[in-house]
Amino acid sequence: MKDTSTFPSPIYKDVVLEPLFEGSKKFFKEGHLAIDQAHCVMLVEQKIISTDEGSKILNALEEIQQEVNFDEIKYTGEFEDYFFFIEHCLKEKLGADLAGRLHTGRSRNDIDHTLFKLNIKKRLLQLNNDLEQLINGVLSVCEQNYDTVVVAYTHGQPAQPTTFAHYLSALVEVLLRDKQRLLNAMDTVNLSPMGAAAITTSGFDLDRNRVAELLGFEKPLYNSYGCISSCDYITSVYSAMKLVFIHIGRFVQDMAQWSSFETGHLYVPNAFVQISSIMPQKRNPVPIEHMRLIASKGMGLCDTLVNAMHNTPFTDMNDSESESQQVGFLAFDNSHRLLSLLTAFVTSVQINETKVHQHLDQSCATITELADTLVRKENLSFRQAHHVVAELATYVVEHELSLQTVSVDIFTQIFEKHIGRSSQLTEDDLRFYVSAKNFIAVRDGLGGPAPSEMRKAVSQYKAQLQSSNAQWSSIETFTLNAIDVRSKVVTDLISKRS
Amino acid sequence: MKDTSTFPSPIYKDVVLEPLFEGSKKFFKEGHLAIDQAHCVMLVEQKIISTDEGSKILNALEEIQQEVNFDEIKYTGEFEDYFFFIEHCLKEKLGADLAGRLHTGRSRNDIDHTLFKLNIKKRLLQLNNDLEQLINGVLSVCEQNYDTVVVAYTHGQPAQPTTFAHYLSALVEVLLRDKQRLLNAMDTVNLSPMGAAAITTSGFDLDRNRVAELLGFEKPLYNSYGCISSCDYITSVYSAMKLVFIHIGRFVQDMAQWSSFETGHLYVPNAFVQISSIMPQKRNPVPIEHMRLIASKGMGLCDTLVNAMHNTPFTDMNDSESESQQVGFLAFDNSHRLLSLLTAFVTSVQINETKVHQHLDQSCATITELADTLVRKENLSFRQAHHVVAELATYVVEHELSLQTVSVDIFTQIFEKHIGRSSQLTEDDLRFYVSAKNFIAVRDGLGGPAPSEMRKAVSQYKAQLQSSNAQWSSIETFTLNAIDVRSKVVTDLISKRS
Amino acid sequence: MKDTSTFPSPIYKDVVLEPLFEGSKKFFKEGHLAIDQAHCVMLVEQKIISTDEGSKILNALEEIQQEVNFDEIKYTGEFEDYFFFIEHCLKEKLGADLAGRLHTGRSRNDIDHTLFKLNIKKRLLQLNNDLEQLINGVLSVCEQNYDTVVVAYTHGQPAQPTTFAHYLSALVEVLLRDKQRLLNAMDTVNLSPMGAAAITTSGFDLDRNRVAELLGFEKPLYNSYGCISSCDYITSVYSAMKLVFIHIGRFVQDMAQWSSFETGHLYVPNAFVQISSIMPQKRNPVPIEHMRLIASKGMGLCDTLVNAMHNTPFTDMNDSESESQQVGFLAFDNSHRLLSLLTAFVTSVQINETKVHQHLDQSCATITELADTLVRKENLSFRQAHHVVAELATYVVEHELSLQTVSVDIFTQIFEKHIGRSSQLTEDDLRFYVSAKNFIAVRDGLGGPAPSEMRKAVSQYKAQLQSSNAQWSSIETFTLNAIDVRSKVVTDLISKRS
Amino acid sequence: MKDTSTFPSPIYKDVVLEPLFEGSKKFFKEGHLAIDQAHCVMLVEQKIISTDEGSKILNALEEIQQEVNFDEIKYTGEFEDYFFFIEHCLKEKLGADLAGRLHTGRSRNDIDHTLFKLNIKKRLLQLNNDLEQLINGVLSVCEQNYDTVVVAYTHGQPAQPTTFAHYLSALVEVLLRDKQRLLNAMDTVNLSPMGAAAITTSGFDLDRNRVAELLGFEKPLYNSYGCISSCDYITSVYSAMKLVFIHIGRFVQDMAQWSSFETGHLYVPNAFVQISSIMPQKRNPVPIEHMRLIASKGMGLCDTLVNAMHNTPFTDMNDSESESQQVGFLAFDNSHRLLSLLTAFVTSVQINETKVHQHLDQSCATITELADTLVRKENLSFRQAHHVVAELATYVVEHELSLQTVSVDIFTQIFEKHIGRSSQLTEDDLRFYVSAKNFIAVRDGLGGPAPSEMRKAVSQYKAQLQSSNAQWSSIETFTLNAIDVRSKVVTDLISKRS
Repeated sequence: MKDTSTFPSPIYKDVVLEPLFEGSKKFFKEGHLAIDQAHCVMLVEQKIISTDEGSKILNALEEIQQEVNFDEIKYTGEFEDYFFFIEHCLKEKLGADLAGRLHTGRSRNDIDHTLFKLNIKKRLLQLNNDLEQLINGVLSVCEQNYDTVVVAYTHGQPAQPTTFAHYLSALVEVLLRDKQRLLNAMDTVNLSPMGAAAITTSGFDLDRNRVAELLGFEKPLYNSYGCISSCDYITSVYSAMKLVFIHIGRFVQDMAQWSSFETGHLYVPNAFVQISSIMPQKRNPVPIEHMRLIASKGMGLCDTLVNAMHNTPFTDMNDSESESQQVGFLAFDNSHRLLSLLTAFVTSVQINETKVHQHLDQSCATITELADTLVRKENLSFRQAHHVVAELATYVVEHELSLQTVSVDIFTQIFEKHIGRSSQLTEDDLRFYVSAKNFIAVRDGLGGPAPSEMRKAVSQYKAQLQSSNAQWSSIETFTLNAIDVRSKVVTDLISKRS
Repeated sequence: MKDTSTFPSPIYKDVVLEPLFEGSKKFFKEGHLAIDQAHCVMLVEQKIISTDEGSKILNALEEIQQEVNFDEIKYTGEFEDYFFFIEHCLKEKLGADLAGRLHTGRSRNDIDHTLFKLNIKKRLLQLNNDLEQLINGVLSVCEQNYDTVVVAYTHGQPAQPTTFAHYLSALVEVLLRDKQRLLNAMDTVNLSPMGAAAITTSGFDLDRNRVAELLGFEKPLYNSYGCISSCDYITSVYSAMKLVFIHIGRFVQDMAQWSSFETGHLYVPNAFVQISSIMPQKRNPVPIEHMRLIASKGMGLCDTLVNAMHNTPFTDMNDSESESQQVGFLAFDNSHRLLSLLTAFVTSVQINETKVHQHLDQSCATITELADTLVRKENLSFRQAHHVVAELATYVVEHELSLQTVSVDIFTQIFEKHIGRSSQLTEDDLRFYVSAKNFIAVRDGLGGPAPSEMRKAVSQYKAQLQSSNAQWSSIETFTLNAIDVRSKVVTDLISKRS
Repeated sequence: MKDTSTFPSPIYKDVVLEPLFEGSKKFFKEGHLAIDQAHCVMLVEQKIISTDEGSKILNALEEIQQEVNFDEIKYTGEFEDYFFFIEHCLKEKLGADLAGRLHTGRSRNDIDHTLFKLNIKKRLLQLNNDLEQLINGVLSVCEQNYDTVVVAYTHGQPAQPTTFAHYLSALVEVLLRDKQRLLNAMDTVNLSPMGAAAITTSGFDLDRNRVAELLGFEKPLYNSYGCISSCDYITSVYSAMKLVFIHIGRFVQDMAQWSSFETGHLYVPNAFVQISSIMPQKRNPVPIEHMRLIASKGMGLCDTLVNAMHNTPFTDMNDSESESQQVGFLAFDNSHRLLSLLTAFVTSVQINETKVHQHLDQSCATITELADTLVRKENLSFRQAHHVVAELATYVVEHELSLQTVSVDIFTQIFEKHIGRSSQLTEDDLRFYVSAKNFIAVRDGLGGPAPSEMRKAVSQYKAQLQSSNAQWSSIETFTLNAIDVRSKVVTDLISKRS
Repeated sequence: MKDTSTFPSPIYKDVVLEPLFEGSKKFFKEGHLAIDQAHCVMLVEQKIISTDEGSKILNALEEIQQEVNFDEIKYTGEFEDYFFFIEHCLKEKLGADLAGRLHTGRSRNDIDHTLFKLNIKKRLLQLNNDLEQLINGVLSVCEQNYDTVVVAYTHGQPAQPTTFAHYLSALVEVLLRDKQRLLNAMDTVNLSPMGAAAITTSGFDLDRNRVAELLGFEKPLYNSYGCISSCDYITSVYSAMKLVFIHIGRFVQDMAQWSSFETGHLYVPNAFVQISSIMPQKRNPVPIEHMRLIASKGMGLCDTLVNAMHNTPFTDMNDSESESQQVGFLAFDNSHRLLSLLTAFVTSVQINETKVHQHLDQSCATITELADTLVRKENLSFRQAHHVVAELATYVVEHELSLQTVSVDIFTQIFEKHIGRSSQLTEDDLRFYVSAKNFIAVRDGLGGPAPSEMRKAVSQYKAQLQSSNAQWSSIETFTLNAIDVRSKVVTDLISKRS
C-alpha cells in the first residue's frame, strides 16, 4: 500500500495523544521516576550495566526533574508519549547509547502496569483511611447512643424500637467487611509487574524481587504474561469499591427518610441544611441527596472501568491502561468526597427522640413484647397472646391513640373477651411492658440492642478495626520505607559517578 | 434540638458547594444569563414588572457580565451557589427590592432544568454534526469501493465475499438510525420547563410560550410537576447515545480483526500506527484500541447518568442535577473524540485486496455460488450440488490449495463420482463461477452487494441523510434565531431605561 | 491435526444445544412455520420452484405440525438444532431433493433474526397494550382527583400543595413518551431480514417485499449485511424498555414514601397489604416493594441484553441470537407483571386528605402564596413579603403549630414589626390565603394544578393516547392481516397439489 | 378509609405470590425444613419448649414432608406464602397452640436470609468445584505444552513467541485469584442470621451459636439488624462471580481470534465445530461464541442482582429476597454451564504449531532477541543493535519473506551498513538466534516461559490449588457434617415423643 502519511494523524494527536500526555504529567510523573530509579539500581546491582553507567543515568534523571518545567510543556506529537519524552531528555544528556541502556530488560508494558498499581495503591491507602475515619466516627456516635431509641423498619413500616447504637453497628459491620474486601483487592495490586518486559520477560538476568522491594511492592506478580494481561487487579479493586458506594447509598436512603418532615426522627443541623429560593419555610437536608448522588456516580465510574474489560482480549491492551485508570481515579475522588462528607454528617446529626417515641407508640411497635409478656406472665399460648395484642393494636390504630394513651381498661376488656378471665396487668405494668426501654432491655442476647450487649459489641468492633488497621499499616509502612530505601541507594549510586 | 452550627459545614463546602460553583461558572454562565433575560423580557411584556424595572434589571445583568472576573472568583460559602451570587450582584446594583423582582414566578428548580436542557441541546447538535461527518465520510468511502472485495464473516470465519461498500453501508444504516434515535430524544429536550417555578407553577400570569421561544425551545413542557421531576429528557438522550457507543464499538472490533497481522485485510496508514519501544518490527494500529476504549468509557458514562436515576423519588432531586449533568457532558466529550477519530480513520484506511482474495480462495468462500451454478447449468438438485461442492471444498482445504489453484480435473472427478456423468464446466468456467467478482455480481437483488444495486442504495442513504439533516437544521436554526431575537428585544428594552 | 472426535461434544450438547432446542420449541415453533410458508409461497410466485413443488412442501409442513408431538421430543444431538430437525422431517416426507428446495435463497441467519423480530413484535404490542392500560388507569384516577390535594415535595421535604391529578399527569406525560420511544424502536423491529440469506443475499430472484408482507413486516430491512449483523433492533427495544422500568421505579418510590406510617398520605387497601408473622400491628404494603424489585430486575435484564452486544464483532454472531433473545423475553415478562400490578394498584389506592392537610399546614407549605398575596394586597415588595412570611413560618414550626391554628394576631405582630404598619388581613383572609385550595386555584396557568387547567390537560393526554394507539393499532392490524393473507395463499397453494 | 377489599388482589396473587410460592417449593423446601428442625432442637435444648413439645413438632414436620405432594400443590392465595402453608399443615396436625411454639423467637425475616445463605453456600461450593475442575484441566494442558510455541500479542499484533503453558499459566493465576475472591465472599455467607427474628432479636434466651452449628454455618452473624438488612453477602458473592465471567470472557476472546481461519493457531476438534446450512466449506467453532455469550449473560445477571440493591433502604426489604435470589441462582447456572464447557473445550483443543511458526517468522516476532544477541555477541550498543534488526525486519516484512527464509547475506549487508564492519554471525547462528526455541529458552527468569521455569511455576500453582481446595473442603465438610448432626439429634428427639 502506498502510504505517505506520517504519525501522528492530527486528530489522533488531539483526541488521544495529548490528553494521555497531560494525564501522564498529572498522575504518573513521580511513579515514572521511581520506576526508572528502581530499575536502574537493580541493573547496576545485577551488573547488567556498570556502576558508572547507572550513576550517570540516575543523576540525569534527577536533573531532568529539576530542569524541565513540566507544567509548561505542551504535547507536540514529536514524541509519542511521556515515556519517549523522558527518554529523549536522557539522550540529550547522556547520548543515545547510554540513555538506551536504562530500558534494558523492560518495556512500556511492564512500566505502565507498575505505574497504575503504584497509583492505585496510594489511593487504596487513602480510601482505607477514609473508611477508618468513618468507622471511628460511627463508633463514637454508637458510644453516645446506647440508650437512644430509634425505629427499626421492616417493609418500610415501623416495626420495632431499637437503639441508634444498634442500628449504626449494623453499618459498622458492613463497613468493616468493606474494608476487608478492599484489603483482599490490595493483595493483587501489591504485586510488581516489573521485569515482565513486553510480556514474556527478557533474556537478561534481572532481579524482579529487588525491583519490587525498591518500589514498595510485597513481591513480583509471578507469570510475566499475566503481569501485562491480567487486569484483575483493576476489576477486583473497583468491584470492591462499588460495594462501598452501594452499601453507603443504602444507609443514606435511610437518612433521607428519617429526616423527612413527616418522619422527623433525624435532626440535621443547620450546617447541613439548605434553604429554598422561594419557599422560606423549608429546611432541605440537601447534603443527603448529594451523598446519594455521589454514591451513584462513584458506582457508575467503578462499573465503567470494570465493564471496559468486557470482551477485550486477554493480552496487552489499552482498554486497561491510562485512560481507563484515570476513570478509576475519578471514582476514588468520589469515594473520598462521600466518606469525608458522611463522616462529618453522621457525627453531627441527632435523634429526635420525641418524634421517635410518638411514632413507636402510634404504630404499636412494641406490641410483640406485650404478647411475649402475656405468654410469660399470664401463661397464655402464643396464639392466645397474639390474638389479644392484635386486637389491642387494631383498637389503638383505628382510634388514632397510642400505646402510651390507651387505657388499661381497654386492654383488660380485650383480654377477658379472648381469654375468659381478667388479666393481672396494671396500668403501670402495661406502660412498662409496651415501653421501648423494656423492649430493648430484654433483647440482650447475641447481637441484640440491649445496652449491655451493645457495649460488648462495640468493643469487638474496635478490636476488629484495630486489627484491620494493623494490616493496612504494615502495607503503608512497607510502601513508605521503600521510598527511603530507594532514595538512599540512588543517592549512594549517584555519589559514585565518575 | 439545640443547634449552634451554621451553614455550610466546611466539608460540605469543600466537597460539594465549591465544585458545583466551579461547574456553574464553566458550563452554565451563558445559559443563566439567557434565562434571566428571557424571563425578564416576558415579565415586562406580561406587565408583571414595569418596563423601567425590566430595563434596569437587564442593564444590570449585562454590567455584571462585563464587570465580574468570573475566572478569578473563588467560592467562599457566602452565597450558597451561582444563582445566589448573581442575585447578590444584582442587589448590589439595584437594591434588594428591585433585584428580587426578577425572580417573580420562577425558582431555581425550573431555572436548573432549563439550563441543563440548553446545554444538552447544544451538545446534541454537536453530536449530530459529528455523526453527519462520520456518515458522510463512510459514504464517500463506499463510493470509492463499490468493487473492492472484502470478506464477510459468520461465526468469526470467512463466509462469503462482499464489497467494502456493501459492508460499510450496513454501518451507515445503523448510524442513520442512531441519528434518528437522537432526534427522537431531542424532542423531549426541546421543551422548556420555565414557568414551572418550584414545581407547581405560580399564581402569576406568566407566558410560558414566550419564554420558550426566547430561549429557542420548541414549546413549553406541559405539566409543571413533570418539568421538575421527569428526568426522561436525560435518560432518553443518554440511552440513545449509549447505543452510538455500542454500535460503533462493534465496527471497531471488526477493524481490529481486519488489521491484525494474520488477517491483514485492512491497511492502516502510518498516521495511525504506533511503534513498540522494544519490538522494532511492530506496526501497532493503537488508535483502534483507543476507539474501542473510548466507546466503552462513553457507554459507562451514559450508564452512570441513567442508572443514577434508579430508585430515586419522582420529584425534584439533585440526582438529576448539576453534578450528574456534568457526567453527561463528559460522555458528549467522548462521543466527539470517538466520532472525529473514527471519521479520520475510516477515510484513511485501505483494503488489501491481495490478502482478501487469498483468504477467500483458501477458505473456499465462494463455493456456495458454484453449487447454485451447478443447479442452474447442470440441472442438479440442491442436495446433489451441495454434495459435489462440499467434497471439492474439503479437498481444497485439506490440501491447502485454493479455489484458484485447484485443477478443474479434480472438480470433474468429484462431479462424476456423485452424479455419474461428466460436467460441462471448463477450467475457465470454474474460475469464473468461483470468482468473488461473479459471486458479487449475481447478488443484485434488494440489499445485495452488486455494484449496480449498491449505487442505488447509496443514493438512498444520501437522501435519508439529507432529510435527517434538514430536521436537525431546523432545530439548530430556530435555536440560533432565538439568540438574535432575544438580543434584539433585550437591547430595545435596555434602551428604554429611565 | 488428527481428530477422531464427532460433533457434538456431550457437554456442549447438554449445556448449549439442548437448551436451545427446548427454547426453539417453546418460543419459535409458530414463527418458524410462518417463515417457511411465506418463503415457500414467494418461491412459487417467483417461479423459483414450481407450484407443485411448493404445494407439496406446504402440505408437508402442515402435516409435520399435526403429526409431531413437540412436547415429547427430546433433543438427541442427531440434528444440530430445530431447523435441521424440521428439515429432517421434510426429507422423510418429500425426499432430500424436494425438501432441500425450500431452503433456496435463504439461510438460518436470516431465518433466525426474522424469528426474533416476529417474537419481539408480538411482545412489543403486548407491552404497548399494558402501557395503554396503565395510562388509561392513571387518567381515570386523575379524573376522579382534580380536587384531591397531595403534597408536592422538593429535596424530600414538603414544598407545596398540588392535586393528585396534577401529580399523576406528570407520570402520564412520561408514560406517553415511553410509549413513543417504544414505537420508535418498533420501527426497526418491523423490517424484514428475509432474503439476506447468510449475509450477502443470494443469486436467486427473490421478492423480499412479498416475504415481508406475508410475515406482517412493514417492508424489508435494506442492506443484507445489516439484516444479519446490525443488532440495533435489539438494543433500541431494550434501551427503551429499560427506561419504562426506571421511570416507573421512581413513581413506585413515591408510593413507598407516601404509604409509610409516618407520612400516611396514601391509603393502600387491604387487597395489597401483607401482615407480619410476628408483629400483629403491621400493615405492610409489600406489593410496592415487589414493584420496585420487578422494575430493578427488568432493568437488569434489559441491560444484560444490551451489554451482551458490547465489544462483539459487527457481523453474524450468537451474542444477539436465541439465548440472548430469551433473556429479553424474560424482561418482557417482567414489564407485563409490573404494569399490570401497577395498574391494579394505582386504581385502588386513595389519598388520605386528612393527613395531607395536617402535614401541609404543619410544614407551612402554602406560605409562598401568602407572600405573593401580600405583594398584591398589601403592596409589599417581594423582599418585604418574604421576610414577613418567613418569620411567620419559623414561628409556626418552632411552636409546632400549623397555618390553620396560628392566630392572625401573631401574623399581624410580625407584619407590623417588619413593615411598620398594620395589615388589613382578617383571620378569614389569612385562612383563605394559606389554604391549599386557594394555592391550587390560582395556579391555573399552562401546566398548573388548578382543576380548570387540569381538565384541559387531561383531555389533551387522552387525545395523545388515542393518536398513539392508532399508530400501534395500524401495526397490529397489519400484522394480524398478514396471518390471514398467508393462511389463505397457503391453503390455495396446497389445494393445487398434484 | 372505607375498605372492603381483601388480600390478596387477584393480580398480586398471579404476578407475585404464586411465582414466589413456586419458587419456595423449588428452591427452599429442604432449607426450610432444616431451619425448622435446627430452631426446634435449640428451643428444646434451651428449655424454651419442652422435649415433648419439640419432639411432636419435629415428628409433624417429617410427616408433612412425607404426606404432602408438593409438586401438585397449587398456590391458592389462602396462605400468603410457603411459610404460612407449612404452619397451616402443622396446625392441622398439632393444633394452633403447639404449632405456634415453633415460631418462638424467630421471624420470616431471619428464616428467609438463612434460607438464601444455605442456597448460596451450596452453589458457591459447586462453583468452586467447577473452578477447580477448570484449573486442573488447564494445568494438565500446561503440563503437556511446556514446549508448544504460541504467539504472544500486544496491541492485537504478534509480538513475541511464548509457550502455550506460559500463556495458560497466566489464566491459572487469574482463576486462582477468582477462587480466592469467592472464598472471601463465602466468609460472609457462612454466618447465620437465625435468632435475629424480625430485626432486633427477641426476649427469649436463644442459643444462636447452636442453631448456626446445626445448620452448618461457621457462626452467627453478630448484629441482628445487620442479619436482616445488610445485603453484602449478596453483593460480595455476585461481584466476585461477575469477575469470573469477565475474566473468562477475555480468554474466550483469544480463543475466538486464535481459531479464526486466517490466524489458525488453535485447532478446534470436530466435537466443537458446527457446520453451515448453506456454506459447506465452513468450520464454525460456535461453542466459543456461546461461551462468550454465556459469560456476558452471567455478568448481566450478577449485575442485575447487585444493582437491585442500589438506592434501597438499609433495612428489611424484598429487594434482596426471594425473587432477587432466584436471579442469582440463574447466574450460578450460567457459571456452571460456562465452566464445564470451557473445561471440556480447553482440554480438547490443540495448537497448530505450523501456523504459529509461520506467523512468528513472517512477523519477525523474535527479532528483539536477535538485537539482544548482537549486544552480547557483537558488543553493539542497544541503539546500534536496534537499528540493525529494525532494518532487517522491515526488509523481511516488505518482501513478504520470513526470518527463516531471509538470507544471512542480507543481514550481513545491513550490519555492515550500520556498524561499518562485518558480523560474525553465520547462517546457522542467525537461524538459531531468531528461533522461537532460543527466544523462549533464554527467558528463564522469574515468571518467564522457559520450560524449566514453567515447571517450577506449575508446581507452585498446584500447591496453591491444593491449599485453596483444603480451605473450601473444610467448609464443605463442616456443612455436610451438620446435616448428620442435625439428623441424629432430630431422630433422638422424635424418639422421645410421648
